[in-house]
Amino acid sequence: MRQSQLFTKTRREAPKDEEAKNAQLLIRAGFVHKEMAGVYAYLPLGLRVIDKIKRVVREEMDAVGGQEMIMTSLQRKELWETTDRWNDKNVDVWFKSELKNGTEVGFGWSHEEPITDMMKSYVESYRDLPKYAYQFQTKLRNELRAKSGIMRGREFVMKDMYSYNTDEATHKAFYDSVIEAYLRIFDRAGLGDRTFLTVASGGAFTQFSHEFQTLSDVGEDLVYLHREKKIAINKEVLTDEVLAQLEVKREDLEEVKAIEVGNIFNFGDVKSKQLGLMYKDESGEEKPVILGSYGIGITRLMGTIVEVFADDKGMVWPEAVAPFLVHIVSLVPNDPAAVAYADSLYEDLAKAGVEALYDDRDARAGEKLADADLIGIPCRVVVGKSTLESGKLEVTYRKNGETKLITREELIEFATSATVRHG
Amino acid sequence: MRQSQLFTKTRREAPKDEEAKNAQLLIRAGFVHKEMAGVYAYLPLGLRVIDKIKRVVREEMDAVGGQEMIMTSLQRKELWETTDRWNDKNVDVWFKSELKNGTEVGFGWSHEEPITDMMKSYVESYRDLPKYAYQFQTKLRNELRAKSGIMRGREFVMKDMYSYNTDEATHKAFYDSVIEAYLRIFDRAGLGDRTFLTVASGGAFTQFSHEFQTLSDVGEDLVYLHREKKIAINKEVLTDEVLAQLEVKREDLEEVKAIEVGNIFNFGDVKSKQLGLMYKDESGEEKPVILGSYGIGITRLMGTIVEVFADDKGMVWPEAVAPFLVHIVSLVPNDPAAVAYADSLYEDLAKAGVEALYDDRDARAGEKLADADLIGIPCRVVVGKSTLESGKLEVTYRKNGETKLITREELIEFATSATVRHG
Repeated sequence: MRQSQLFTKTRREAPKDEEAKNAQLLIRAGFVHKEMAGVYAYLPLGLRVIDKIKRVVREEMDAVGGQEMIMTSLQRKELWETTDRWNDKNVDVWFKSELKNGTEVGFGWSHEEPITDMMKSYVESYRDLPKYAYQFQTKLRNELRAKSGIMRGREFVMKDMYSYNTDEATHKAFYDSVIEAYLRIFDRAGLGDRTFLTVASGGAFTQFSHEFQTLSDVGEDLVYLHREKKIAINKEVLTDEVLAQLEVKREDLEEVKAIEVGNIFNFGDVKSKQLGLMYKDESGEEKPVILGSYGIGITRLMGTIVEVFADDKGMVWPEAVAPFLVHIVSLVPNDPAAVAYADSLYEDLAKAGVEALYDDRDARAGEKLADADLIGIPCRVVVGKSTLESGKLEVTYRKNGETKLITREELIEFATSATVRHG
Repeated sequence: MRQSQLFTKTRREAPKDEEAKNAQLLIRAGFVHKEMAGVYAYLPLGLRVIDKIKRVVREEMDAVGGQEMIMTSLQRKELWETTDRWNDKNVDVWFKSELKNGTEVGFGWSHEEPITDMMKSYVESYRDLPKYAYQFQTKLRNELRAKSGIMRGREFVMKDMYSYNTDEATHKAFYDSVIEAYLRIFDRAGLGDRTFLTVASGGAFTQFSHEFQTLSDVGEDLVYLHREKKIAINKEVLTDEVLAQLEVKREDLEEVKAIEVGNIFNFGDVKSKQLGLMYKDESGEEKPVILGSYGIGITRLMGTIVEVFADDKGMVWPEAVAPFLVHIVSLVPNDPAAVAYADSLYEDLAKAGVEALYDDRDARAGEKLADADLIGIPCRVVVGKSTLESGKLEVTYRKNGETKLITREELIEFATSATVRHG
């Protein structure tokens, strides 16, 4: 994409009404636009990041057998009354409205109920199980405060998967496969070394649920981390009994701030009993289906990546989720030979299947380089006067600031193989 | 995708609470699930159709210079009051709710206002124009009645693009390029020969707006069609003056029922003046930006395709928007040799990049063939006992029922080239 065509612009100053670093940087770089507190539009660069994250998540959900679909935002009151989650006392984040005929409706903040209810159309016997369905859904939650930028919004994108199994053993096997898939997702998103499987309280059916917590000073959660065993414990279950069960000692735990980027939960047969999702087993006996739910906040993950990697110059995107892999910065936009060189480099990368942002704007070099740092694309390639003389391109890695002089062929080969690697 | 893994099932009977053929068939085939009147979830097969339609639309919007982004569902009251479209008397399809602090909010039924307001952050001078932004947005509209299945929903997916130009001449050139892009989209979606550019009333700024109307007996619109000139006229502008202007005679017009699948509109400078989107021209003078808006109902288009092509056996998807191109139907799921043959055919197609639905279920042949007709994938390939003996595959085109015996290699070549053709 030619940067001169992009409808957004960068800005030097952070917006005054944003406390969170992620929102400040994303707005300054033109990735998002704030519609109201906790409600952001995703502009071309920002939408590209969301799409990259979705691609990683989709691949891993498909790999464990998930099938993608999309539920509705509008929700039926009667359905949520069945599980006693319509009441504002039990669920305090509903947005509600009404149809023209006065029927009350809600806007989806979660989707266990409608998906489980829908499954009644498709599950009759053990032969119809297991089933794994997931969606990328825009959730609406009426949060009292929304000060964390895109990390806790009133409107945000979530991947939620739901598993339907006949029994606890097959459920457990799938649940464990999702733990592995989630760890792969956070690894591919660049957060692998600072994201930890975390034991949390389980609810009615099981002792524990599991969270995935990414270490960060801006995290809202406090967790107790055993670095060596790569496991963390949520404060709510930090008892001597649980420590013994997990075979860790209290003195080996570190108290750390973290951001919850994912969670998985075993509902057992509770919700299926409430909603009437039953199946007939081999002997014809009616049994409730075992339900698990598995969430990753897509936009929260994006915000977390900004918070964790940004430096004082701007954002730093890991390759797999960067809006573009390569940022071509033309420093002499008025030199026809250099422009022709940059144009053909941009076209050659496109032909090789490599997505590049091409700063072809008629602007000062300093402004362009500052914008490149702010936007944070992994690999910056400068085309200047010396490029044509030397035949070498100056490539700088945003991650560590390392600069190399490489040939055009080396750049295309590096970029092509990185593109293939990240799908 | 193996059909045995699909979490949906077909059903013989149409749901009793659906009048519209599109919803009856889509529900019977497991493409959609009805959450409430006019509100549908899109299940794996249905979501695949939406994604295919989006891909066609995205390519054509990118080709005219559009940049994809996504606005928010939550809307600010103050913004819509500026253009006097918050009031329920002027806009009767709002869903409204409120934040915890009592602030009223709406849910996006349209997005001209927020996009135009946002553009104020990015447009200062003529150098910043033109700008073309589009989104695929889930719109919420509080329709009084919702009886047309996915063709007129309370929650539906729309592609809306907005153009920002300095003057009427550059606006007109872009507007005309979108007319061409829209005609290409409807052509690629299989509706080209029955979709007509239609002159409709223009509003405050221009004499005409344009609709794209697809001929169908279930259409809610009546338009007056000049087949030879490939133009239709909406009743609201059917005057002697307009007929003279368009150089058509009243007696050459046919009154036909049609479905509005797209519309484009010139707002001129009206909305920019209301919202304060101004730019400085070459002489430094402040002028209002010229705004156009361009809509295609993605889910309505899907419903229209069902209505127009379905026969008494089920749906008939055009290749470019079909959930899969090929449907492999194994008729002898208990014959190990035939199963091995069908398995390897499915794998070979996948390796060639061809998406196939593979009916590997342990079910009766008649049931499988009826399901294949209902689902409506363009190219059905039957693997039976005779397949292994003859070395030929029986291929049936859903569109016209034509059957051919072809070799495995011929099938793979046909399917590969069709896949490449449709992107």
